[in-house]
Amino acid sequence: MIGILGGGQLGRMLALAGYPLGLSFRFLDPSPEACAGQVGPVVVGDFLDEGALLRFAEGLFLVTYEFENVPVEAARRLAARLPVYPSPQALEVAQDRLREKAFFRGLGVPTPPFHPVDGLEDLEEGLKRVGLPALLKTRRGGYDGKGQALVRKKEEALEALKALGGKGLLLEGFVPFHREVSLLAVRGRTGEVAFYPLVENRHREGILRLSLAPAPGAREPLQKKAEAYALRAMQALDYVGVLALEFFQVGEELLFNEMAPRVHNSGHWTIEGAETSQFQNHLRAVLGLPLGSTAPRGHSAMVNLIGFRPDFAEALKVEGAHLHWYGKAVRPGRKVGHITLRRDSQGELQEALQRLLAALALSV
Amino acid sequence: MIGILGGGQLGRMLALAGYPLGLSFRFLDPSPEACAGQVGPVVVGDFLDEGALLRFAEGLFLVTYEFENVPVEAARRLAARLPVYPSPQALEVAQDRLREKAFFRGLGVPTPPFHPVDGLEDLEEGLKRVGLPALLKTRRGGYDGKGQALVRKKEEALEALKALGGKGLLLEGFVPFHREVSLLAVRGRTGEVAFYPLVENRHREGILRLSLAPAPGAREPLQKKAEAYALRAMQALDYVGVLALEFFQVGEELLFNEMAPRVHNSGHWTIEGAETSQFQNHLRAVLGLPLGSTAPRGHSAMVNLIGFRPDFAEALKVEGAHLHWYGKAVRPGRKVGHITLRRDSQGELQEALQRLLAALALSV
Ligand SMILES: Nc1ncnc2c1ncn2[C@@H]1O[C@H](COP(=O)(O)OP(=O)(O)OP(=O)(O)O)[C@@H](O)[C@H]1O
Ligand SMILES: Nc1ncnc2c1ncn2[C@@H]1O[C@H](COP(=O)(O)OP(=O)(O)OP(=O)(O)O)[C@@H](O)[C@H]1O
Repeated sequence: MIGILGGGQLGRMLALAGYPLGLSFRFLDPSPEACAGQVGPVVVGDFLDEGALLRFAEGLFLVTYEFENVPVEAARRLAARLPVYPSPQALEVAQDRLREKAFFRGLGVPTPPFHPVDGLEDLEEGLKRVGLPALLKTRRGGYDGKGQALVRKKEEALEALKALGGKGLLLEGFVPFHREVSLLAVRGRTGEVAFYPLVENRHREGILRLSLAPAPGAREPLQKKAEAYALRAMQALDYVGVLALEFFQVGEELLFNEMAPRVHNSGHWTIEGAETSQFQNHLRAVLGLPLGSTAPRGHSAMVNLIGFRPDFAEALKVEGAHLHWYGKAVRPGRKVGHITLRRDSQGELQEALQRLLAALALSV
Repeated sequence: MIGILGGGQLGRMLALAGYPLGLSFRFLDPSPEACAGQVGPVVVGDFLDEGALLRFAEGLFLVTYEFENVPVEAARRLAARLPVYPSPQALEVAQDRLREKAFFRGLGVPTPPFHPVDGLEDLEEGLKRVGLPALLKTRRGGYDGKGQALVRKKEEALEALKALGGKGLLLEGFVPFHREVSLLAVRGRTGEVAFYPLVENRHREGILRLSLAPAPGAREPLQKKAEAYALRAMQALDYVGVLALEFFQVGEELLFNEMAPRVHNSGHWTIEGAETSQFQNHLRAVLGLPLGSTAPRGHSAMVNLIGFRPDFAEALKVEGAHLHWYGKAVRPGRKVGHITLRRDSQGELQEALQRLLAALALSV
């Protein structure tokens, strides 16, 4: 039995990809409503509750995560007893926007300009170095665009500093990017690596709305660049599992934005759109099995269902539409499902996507 | 929640295809070891045990089967209370080799010559009509080649009659077929129909070993013929769900051999090899949702794992290999998993198949 820290939709999809391999799963999640609980047993408890950790760990042969804000301390305690992939170190780097940017910069990977902010002085120094516009971000805990403020003028910087708590922050130059792309990479216990094609991601209100895979117009050198960056990071961390890297594309350059040491929303299209899904490849990697082909099958678009339940029949009328409903209660702003649309050509995909968005009454 | 009569691998794969639609499942199976129990709750009990049926039915909104030897009586009792798809009538026809052949013959579908045998007189009459060689089969309960005897001479017929119990039998002309093919068809609650491409099936010792999909060299008229036969049967039965038809191909003719009123082993390739799997389409059909595209994606071979556990790593080394391990105890002759191999061209598929069979130390 494999243990998964976190019991959300990523855990749910990991289990669904693992059952065909004859695996079984147990989740640890603080919420009794964790949606992975519909497909496997959940230990409900805090990640740092020793009793919960013990009940969770019992009889497992390895542990992985589906949620990167698991306390590193919990991962370390488990790692003292059984294999934990990726290593708690990767988790630690990913949880801190400053550490992660410094880590990638240290590997020679371009990033937006950034400066740590723990008070007024740092902020002023940062504004000098980074320039305006900029983003003031918390180092920890933000997600889906929460915990950050756009700063166009110095006065806004002061307000943002107060609003975000005055310390544990990071000032980052605003990048006038052409688009956002992500790379899903995977490294096995044997050091074997594989990379999915770059994905184009469109966000609104800080939340991923749409992914297009492979990223339209992304050429070989861009793909190779992203792969080289991911490889450096995975080797430096002795990484095992799927690693997601988000980049800003500016011309033919990639600036590193953030990493997720887990399967990633921008990789959901791989369930139908690639030979092997990110979920199955994550499991193959942590089990030491050969990785599966990451080749795309045609062209895919992944539309997140955020805060509403669509008419399933209307959505499924669109040829090549594959629904994933996570079984979560619908709340505003909450990711409750996604639809992957797969077609053989980019032209067909665009046409089908227009019909799907119309069926969902969505604009992206 | 959907109820599934039977808790074997077909039920397991139905549930795995249904979770992404946000569905949940409950199984009814006489065995506490039913392998679907690893992915959803099982009511352990006899199909005709009223208490078990009640516990199973509680709160379900519809019932379907994964096993066609469920007593028709159990399906009828459930159907008095809630929707059961396909209808118990389809189950009844499928459970009796004589009824099913007579039913298809009545629809104008060619079958091997056959004659009912309930004693010595019938046998003699049958031998006259059907000729030799022939097969004496039990009308009910046989599967994977069990419950049938090859008859080359009259003396063998007499022995077989005794061995098979003397009545409730069927004598069938032996068809010197070119190959065996199957058609997976699906009909929704709205009457919408869809057909997968014909599949070529290779059996050994009465058990399916290998399926090739689409069936190499099957031309459009053969496909259309099979679809027309399936359509007649589905309409006559007001069928809802996936229906599998097995045929003997003789030249460009198809002789009906048998039907399965459920998802079928020869359709497992659809999980990776078709736009929509037979499992998901069965669920879409019974739920009244639009059917998904049945278009193949490239070329697939499905290899059954019978009575042994392969080295997973060796098998997964082959590009395009997808493992399905059912979580069952390994016993001789038992289907414990399958591997689907998907490649873009027939040439690549054949080459990869040779490597896979070598990795499994199998000959097919
Ligand atoms: N330096 C920047 N320049 C321009 N836009 C930015 C910058 N940093 C962040 N953004 C925008 O804000 C979005 C969210 O930022 P970021 O990825 O740092 O936050 P997050 O809340 O962790 O998001 P996620 O949920 O993807 O992890 C980005 O996808 C991008 O659209
Ligand atoms: N009339 C026939 N002529 C030639 N071969 C036959 C005939 N009937 C059956 N066979 C062979 O025996 C195999 C099994 O027969 P059949 O499909 O009737 O039995 P079964 O035990 O119900 O199999 P299954 O498990 O596929 O339901 C067939 O796939 C075919 O290879």
